[in-house]
Amino acid sequence: MHAIGVDIGGTKIAAGVIDEDGTILAKTRRVTEPDDAGSIDQAIAEIYGEFSGSYEIGSIGLAAAGFVSSDRSGVLFAPNLAWRNYPLDERVRALIGGDVRIVVENDANAAGWAEFRFGVGREVDDMLMLTVGTGLGGALVADGKLVRGAWGVAAEVGHMRVVPGGHYCGCGHEGCWEQYASGSALVRDAQAALITQPERAESLLSRVGGKVGDLTGPDVTEAAQAGDELAIELLANLGRWIGEGAASVAALIDPGLIVIGGGVGAAGDLLLSPVRHAFSEQLSGRGYRPEARIELAAMGNDAGIVGAADLSRV
Amino acid sequence: MHAIGVDIGGTKIAAGVIDEDGTILAKTRRVTEPDDAGSIDQAIAEIYGEFSGSYEIGSIGLAAAGFVSSDRSGVLFAPNLAWRNYPLDERVRALIGGDVRIVVENDANAAGWAEFRFGVGREVDDMLMLTVGTGLGGALVADGKLVRGAWGVAAEVGHMRVVPGGHYCGCGHEGCWEQYASGSALVRDAQAALITQPERAESLLSRVGGKVGDLTGPDVTEAAQAGDELAIELLANLGRWIGEGAASVAALIDPGLIVIGGGVGAAGDLLLSPVRHAFSEQLSGRGYRPEARIELAAMGNDAGIVGAADLSRV
Amino acid sequence: MHAIGVDIGGTKIAAGVIDEDGTILAKTRRVTEPDDAGSIDQAIAEIYGEFSGSYEIGSIGLAAAGFVSSDRSGVLFAPNLAWRNYPLDERVRALIGGDVRIVVENDANAAGWAEFRFGVGREVDDMLMLTVGTGLGGALVADGKLVRGAWGVAAEVGHMRVVPGGHYCGCGHEGCWEQYASGSALVRDAQAALITQPERAESLLSRVGGKVGDLTGPDVTEAAQAGDELAIELLANLGRWIGEGAASVAALIDPGLIVIGGGVGAAGDLLLSPVRHAFSEQLSGRGYRPEARIELAAMGNDAGIVGAADLSRV
Amino acid sequence: MHAIGVDIGGTKIAAGVIDEDGTILAKTRRVTEPDDAGSIDQAIAEIYGEFSGSYEIGSIGLAAAGFVSSDRSGVLFAPNLAWRNYPLDERVRALIGGDVRIVVENDANAAGWAEFRFGVGREVDDMLMLTVGTGLGGALVADGKLVRGAWGVAAEVGHMRVVPGGHYCGCGHEGCWEQYASGSALVRDAQAALITQPERAESLLSRVGGKVGDLTGPDVTEAAQAGDELAIELLANLGRWIGEGAASVAALIDPGLIVIGGGVGAAGDLLLSPVRHAFSEQLSGRGYRPEARIELAAMGNDAGIVGAADLSRV
Repeated sequence: MHAIGVDIGGTKIAAGVIDEDGTILAKTRRVTEPDDAGSIDQAIAEIYGEFSGSYEIGSIGLAAAGFVSSDRSGVLFAPNLAWRNYPLDERVRALIGGDVRIVVENDANAAGWAEFRFGVGREVDDMLMLTVGTGLGGALVADGKLVRGAWGVAAEVGHMRVVPGGHYCGCGHEGCWEQYASGSALVRDAQAALITQPERAESLLSRVGGKVGDLTGPDVTEAAQAGDELAIELLANLGRWIGEGAASVAALIDPGLIVIGGGVGAAGDLLLSPVRHAFSEQLSGRGYRPEARIELAAMGNDAGIVGAADLSRV
Repeated sequence: MHAIGVDIGGTKIAAGVIDEDGTILAKTRRVTEPDDAGSIDQAIAEIYGEFSGSYEIGSIGLAAAGFVSSDRSGVLFAPNLAWRNYPLDERVRALIGGDVRIVVENDANAAGWAEFRFGVGREVDDMLMLTVGTGLGGALVADGKLVRGAWGVAAEVGHMRVVPGGHYCGCGHEGCWEQYASGSALVRDAQAALITQPERAESLLSRVGGKVGDLTGPDVTEAAQAGDELAIELLANLGRWIGEGAASVAALIDPGLIVIGGGVGAAGDLLLSPVRHAFSEQLSGRGYRPEARIELAAMGNDAGIVGAADLSRV
Repeated sequence: MHAIGVDIGGTKIAAGVIDEDGTILAKTRRVTEPDDAGSIDQAIAEIYGEFSGSYEIGSIGLAAAGFVSSDRSGVLFAPNLAWRNYPLDERVRALIGGDVRIVVENDANAAGWAEFRFGVGREVDDMLMLTVGTGLGGALVADGKLVRGAWGVAAEVGHMRVVPGGHYCGCGHEGCWEQYASGSALVRDAQAALITQPERAESLLSRVGGKVGDLTGPDVTEAAQAGDELAIELLANLGRWIGEGAASVAALIDPGLIVIGGGVGAAGDLLLSPVRHAFSEQLSGRGYRPEARIELAAMGNDAGIVGAADLSRV
Repeated sequence: MHAIGVDIGGTKIAAGVIDEDGTILAKTRRVTEPDDAGSIDQAIAEIYGEFSGSYEIGSIGLAAAGFVSSDRSGVLFAPNLAWRNYPLDERVRALIGGDVRIVVENDANAAGWAEFRFGVGREVDDMLMLTVGTGLGGALVADGKLVRGAWGVAAEVGHMRVVPGGHYCGCGHEGCWEQYASGSALVRDAQAALITQPERAESLLSRVGGKVGDLTGPDVTEAAQAGDELAIELLANLGRWIGEGAASVAALIDPGLIVIGGGVGAAGDLLLSPVRHAFSEQLSGRGYRPEARIELAAMGNDAGIVGAADLSRV
């Protein structure tokens, strides 16, 4: 039986029909209004209408950034969408009718699950996924099952505290891991370095015509790949924070594999080597235990729809 | 069918016959030599001999402090015993023969499992157990299953890093949680306070006849219960570190219940209130998610044998 | 002989005629344009013209926020004014002529010096002044002399690092003391508490009609004085950071007195008690050395002009 | 007029006759009992007897590790000697009679002063001396004068806190700079690395025949000089902590020169380069201010007697 996977972003929706092996049989997209919850319901119904004409659909998996209710029927809170205790499954069903199974899932969980089932994690049972983007999201798989927690909000890895009294986080706390291990942290540190270490920053500064505020993560990655020492150091520092934090998570859940997803993966070994080095150095019990492998994600942007679809199956 | 649970300590062994409801039907003890692995095998065999005469035994659960092999047949490394890659199940079977099932488990996992199945956690599915003793041990239960990890060494909660560049840990790293949230940390901080804040330490000093090095955790607890302000502050500080660290773990696994075990539980609300306050204050996403309850463990010293026995069943 | 003291702010100038005992004989004010360095020169010249008609003036002391050149003739850099390597003494002399002595001084140094000479510090030889305002400024007096440093930029106390990997500072670094011990830090922490601890924040929220962003330092101080527990805790936290940092400075310069200036002084003992407690607890070598007193500044807003005037004398 | 300088260690005394240019005209040594304060008095008297026969002696400077009274007549507390509020000047005078001036000084102050007057600091007015040995001692010179503080205990640089909640210090506090920037810290970190990173530690391990506890600072330095990557990294880490802490001190006192003394100086640029890099990176206001030079001490082990002698002059 096929399943539809839907990845609901702030302003657009990606969706696909996925078979049991994780293969994408068809894809489509919609533009939506983040402030208009009804427009999202409508778009999902349209997508179902489009796909159910050509494929036999057993279930729909809906992935979105936010806290998902523990029965996976709706969303408690989504920072970038108009959902507050929103019964997404009920609203969509009102539009499409029938008895197709509808399951809501956190988007980072969906992406991590896709990697676990069909991507780089398909041969392990215990996995930590880290999605290093604007923030730091993630997913945990323990003994082949997604760890959802008592209320469905497990794997908020970006909010593990790594520095008491550390950087302020959007969540209202200090020292959250995502303030050190995210694309935003990379950009912030890079912009600061342009100011405090101008003599080392010539190459980076010239990329943005001297406008510190214009510097982006890809600028740093490209400069590093071209051999710029400061850019290499900035990526290494990001990698160190990822690796050290991952060692703390590993002390808790002992994963066999750690998967690094998100845009920073483009930096390849310039990021991955420092991650591995720091993880290894910080891992508790080293020498008395095997060590998790650390790999880049393999599924790209389709991970969300593939994982959401798969998680919607019984 | 009954199961034997064995809790193997550094110098003594406690064991019992446990039924399927977690009830202890019989108990016994043995003294052993930590440096003589054979003496432990021998003691376990004796215990089996003693109990199997009176009870029908289906399995034996052996709990010990250390890294247990992922197939639960032996111990990779035990800090306080002579075991290095020790095939405990094979050695015991050589002595007792027959086909009784033998399962080895980490002692903190066993104690946590007992709380989950028969103690304070029996109505939740997702639980974090923290055993605050000399060190900080723990157990994780996700969706009703013990989280063991890829190599059986999950739930080494005491080695999550909470302060970069922080206190040195016996594991060779800096800033491990157990250096802040353990009975040893309490004693260390209390002894330091006797030196740096002598004018507030009169009551504590008088308890140990002025000998700073003689101060113990129970001294602090008793002084706090008698109203001593410095002792109350020391317990509150311990509680703060427990609660703040627990909030980080909760960001990862979203437990419905956090159980505090170990000797410091004797402090009751003098410890528990600061734990709850700090947890609440540090929990990410507060207001958008329910909050885990935090309770003291209910099973006492028998948790290890009860949990080990239960985990040995199929 | 009298001296003129001028305190040059971003948009206004305060000035006075000061006698050798620190008494203010006359005062005046001017409004200026921060972006127009010439308007400041002009205003100073006018002030001199006004005062020199009625008083015999031997020297002029000019105090401004910024890095002052080591020969005290100009300003290397001022964050809030249009000065970059600006020869202030030369420009003013071009307007007023004559041979009156002109001395430029950092404003925090001037205020600290006034406290040392005529305020709360007049009986000590070694003093640390901390001005807790938007940022954290200060002044050091060692053996009766202002510590200026090799290039005139000593006593940038707010940029001592107190948390590695800590809050970002406007200076481009992480963990600077002023990110923890300033009015801005108080406001930032208070606003965060309104979000993460709403159930404790009723009183504070009602003061700003629920608008978190409107909360100010005086709101916190007033709420604390009215007994609000959260506000008291916020001030205590600010006090703790001030006191702990001051203990580090004391390890370096062993002051006999620490003076707390700036708007937060309005909180009185609600701030001062936690400062003293934290200082005492963190002071190295306690018990083997006397401890510095910690007092509120006594000179108020006039400290700048009085100190600048006094420092301009030979 | 000549002065005698005496450097009083735990088990031995070094002394010399010093002229006004800092030249050592004669030297001698004595063995003493740290637990017998009288034996030290006696040894000093003997030294005076020996030297005053051949040289005209105007004053005696006595340098010792400890808190010196603010009138420089005695020692309040010395961690390694039997002195508690010990009137050293009075006791020595009772033995030698006459009216030769006797001045007691902290040993790190004496060594720093020697560098300032006759060593690498003789052309600056503002200097920070850091003596990186078992602990981290230091001296501050502001505008050509030794900073002694209100009670003579300034420049306890090793007890500036650099990590809240950091390593425990012998002083009873946490996170003191000397726990990160001292020879002891280097040895501790190196020994930990032997355990946690055995695969990188072959060269270091072979130097001590596999006995982790035998590893010393010079072992690390020699291995680093022979190109060992782990040893180089350990020295770089030590250098980073020295440089970052020095940047905090520089924010306070703005030195023109920072002098690194103590045994670790043997590592040369392997230590100095990371110190300079970290200092530069962390210095507040970089770009708007000149930067202090950082140099190795030039006076070696004689600094103590030369500085003590010079400080004893009027």
